[in-house]
Amino acid sequence: MDDRILPRTLKGFRDYLPQAMLVREQIMDTARRVFRSFGFSPIDTPALEYLEILLGKGGAETDKQLYRFQDHGGRDVGMRFDLTVPLARFAAQHIGELGTPFKRYHIATVWRGENTQAGRYREFMQCDFDTIGTRSTAADAETVLVAHELLRSIGFERFTIHVNNRMVLNGLLASLGLAERTTEILRAIDKLAKIGPDRVVEEMTQTAGASHEQASRVVQLVRLTGGNEAILAQLRPLLGNSPLGEEGLERLTELLSAVRAGGVPDHRIKLDVSIARGLDYYTGTVLETILDEVPDIGSVCSGGRYDNLAELYTKQQLPGIGASLGLDRLLAAMEKLGMLPETQTPAQVLLAYFDPARLGDYFQLAGALRAAGVCVEVFPEPAKLGKQLQYADRKKLRLAVIAGEREFAAGECQVKDLSTGESLTVSLADGAAELLQTVKQILGLGDANGP
Amino acid sequence: MDDRILPRTLKGFRDYLPQAMLVREQIMDTARRVFRSFGFSPIDTPALEYLEILLGKGGAETDKQLYRFQDHGGRDVGMRFDLTVPLARFAAQHIGELGTPFKRYHIATVWRGENTQAGRYREFMQCDFDTIGTRSTAADAETVLVAHELLRSIGFERFTIHVNNRMVLNGLLASLGLAERTTEILRAIDKLAKIGPDRVVEEMTQTAGASHEQASRVVQLVRLTGGNEAILAQLRPLLGNSPLGEEGLERLTELLSAVRAGGVPDHRIKLDVSIARGLDYYTGTVLETILDEVPDIGSVCSGGRYDNLAELYTKQQLPGIGASLGLDRLLAAMEKLGMLPETQTPAQVLLAYFDPARLGDYFQLAGALRAAGVCVEVFPEPAKLGKQLQYADRKKLRLAVIAGEREFAAGECQVKDLSTGESLTVSLADGAAELLQTVKQILGLGDANGP
Repeated sequence: MDDRILPRTLKGFRDYLPQAMLVREQIMDTARRVFRSFGFSPIDTPALEYLEILLGKGGAETDKQLYRFQDHGGRDVGMRFDLTVPLARFAAQHIGELGTPFKRYHIATVWRGENTQAGRYREFMQCDFDTIGTRSTAADAETVLVAHELLRSIGFERFTIHVNNRMVLNGLLASLGLAERTTEILRAIDKLAKIGPDRVVEEMTQTAGASHEQASRVVQLVRLTGGNEAILAQLRPLLGNSPLGEEGLERLTELLSAVRAGGVPDHRIKLDVSIARGLDYYTGTVLETILDEVPDIGSVCSGGRYDNLAELYTKQQLPGIGASLGLDRLLAAMEKLGMLPETQTPAQVLLAYFDPARLGDYFQLAGALRAAGVCVEVFPEPAKLGKQLQYADRKKLRLAVIAGEREFAAGECQVKDLSTGESLTVSLADGAAELLQTVKQILGLGDANGP
Repeated sequence: MDDRILPRTLKGFRDYLPQAMLVREQIMDTARRVFRSFGFSPIDTPALEYLEILLGKGGAETDKQLYRFQDHGGRDVGMRFDLTVPLARFAAQHIGELGTPFKRYHIATVWRGENTQAGRYREFMQCDFDTIGTRSTAADAETVLVAHELLRSIGFERFTIHVNNRMVLNGLLASLGLAERTTEILRAIDKLAKIGPDRVVEEMTQTAGASHEQASRVVQLVRLTGGNEAILAQLRPLLGNSPLGEEGLERLTELLSAVRAGGVPDHRIKLDVSIARGLDYYTGTVLETILDEVPDIGSVCSGGRYDNLAELYTKQQLPGIGASLGLDRLLAAMEKLGMLPETQTPAQVLLAYFDPARLGDYFQLAGALRAAGVCVEVFPEPAKLGKQLQYADRKKLRLAVIAGEREFAAGECQVKDLSTGESLTVSLADGAAELLQTVKQILGLGDANGP
């Protein structure tokens, strides 16, 4: 009788094996380094929140997807479904102590009981950064710089950051007397690529009560194309002297100039009047980042400016801007583009292990290599060389260092390049100086002894 | 009417503000670096598991503390309460693909509905590493080396790793015919420090059916003190020719010799026959790590060898050894020992911002400093210098770089040391070379231009 429990993960959940996890850690490490270099600080919040904190914040669909239950004290609790609602709660609670401006990043897991048939997962990592407590365009421009530096540091060269300012469209709508119908107008605009301009105009006249002329002006505005300067020049006469629209235009101009000065090349930044990013939340700058080679994956870094982050929890008004790096989309893109390494271990060198009486010697060699910055795995059992090399091969290690009784007696060891199969004999004298130098040279780790 | 929601965290849960989170990230970064240098690979598993995977694995108390509920599909699920049960499930599921030996680390959050009156939290981070699929003492010795390197890399110098091998005591108990009463014997031994040897002997005679002489031999064994060599020498005659005990002794001897060769100084490793670490789970080497200056905090890195990790989920036998770094205990110790930095931001330099028309210049300067490895925060609003310096002071930044219209016109800027209040005027010519050199020098970042 076998009463074993079937080892399995829940639907929509997944294990990360080393090969996948190594890449995820590398991206998260890179993101942390970039965030810190701009002065963003890390925070963390609980996975579980009072249900009332989470309910109604992401709409009816999100409420339905919430993982919720009663805890041991009979409290209604839920698992966070994003990092923005926890940030709002966190800011309301701590901003007095932290002061403004407050710049934070937050890399953490969130949960949503999504329909898995759509290929969605129910547990995923979010990677957010926000600057709270300022309306300054400098913060908006910096958000674009961070997005640019994130993508570049992760290894992408061909990508475009699309920027817009919600004030532009909102200004036009206000001047047309359509401000109250923004939601319907945006919903129609979202269909532009799918159904074309004529049917979008038609929909606006039907759902938003716009005249044909008004709808055409809106569609004309969001369809502007060309270089950033050309679009800016065309926008002004279309805005109907709306002060809000003018301010949006001014902020866009300032933003584009600042991000250019900040090192973003012109071909990577595109003024795109059609992007709005959701219906109600954003009020100023919005951004999306598209990978030029795999645009279908969607935006890999998106965000925007909001007027008041934490109004549900505090009287204090907290404007800000933030964006989110799409870790899973980036990984999907890297896989498609062949950017994923095949390594299954961080180890670079296998130190073969033959003689239990020599374990101390192996540990000494491994310690010397680690002190030189090399990641070394000592095979844990005194097995045949073939088995150990097979292991190293399967794990895609780069080098094997081999020393048996004969080598130790001669004061030397073999360094075997596992990709070419070539072997070198090097001396173990002087604290294995030649070994360290050889290994570092092959691994491209630089030579501490200098030329 | 104020219908705002009270911003608060659940009892037993906490927010991490930047000051606390920066230290946590630093420790986790260090741990990852150490794990990788020994060839351990990262994995991750879901926060939620099928309830049947988790139930009954940690005893009745753990079952009671489980966060459990029905998910949207009516499945009984639970939040993981440790990383060992998920590892066992993971290994049963994937070891065929991964092969053995398999070395993994896992740094992740776990949840337990603990009694918070005991000062315990209900959400905390675990930081585990294991070597699976080998019985070799080399893996045990390496586990001690990793524990040693973790503590040293985090910044501790005064600590002691206590090691033992469960085979020693188990061998003695077998030779005394008390093997079946191991649980009761261990329970009595655990009280040694509290109630003294005489009452422990008494308890063993009452609860474990041991004779007075048998109980005395057990107590004599676990009370051995002295240097490691001395204890080893005293142990042998006490073991009553038990083959299991002999093997334990041999493995301990091999372990101590290997970790010495691996660079652990003798004063940091202590053979301690009294440690057992739990009643049933461990079968060979066990270890605990005590900080010499704050022993009351308890072990900050503990673990041991087990015979069969995943027997509940698979027929395949998976022996291994693992240990866990106690992140929260380490932080408590660092706080007590004054090892925690006061910084609230990773930024080292505040770049003051005065003139919106100059935002591009500030971004250029900031970009140049970042490219030189400096973490720079540009103040997001063109505010008065006093306000910006106050901000830098509150966040404990090290330097401020100050350039207004007058400085830009003269092609220079001020570098202000915020700890001393001293200012230097440096040139902005040649891509701000003098600025970069000055800032890097003050921050101790090394000088790329050489001496």
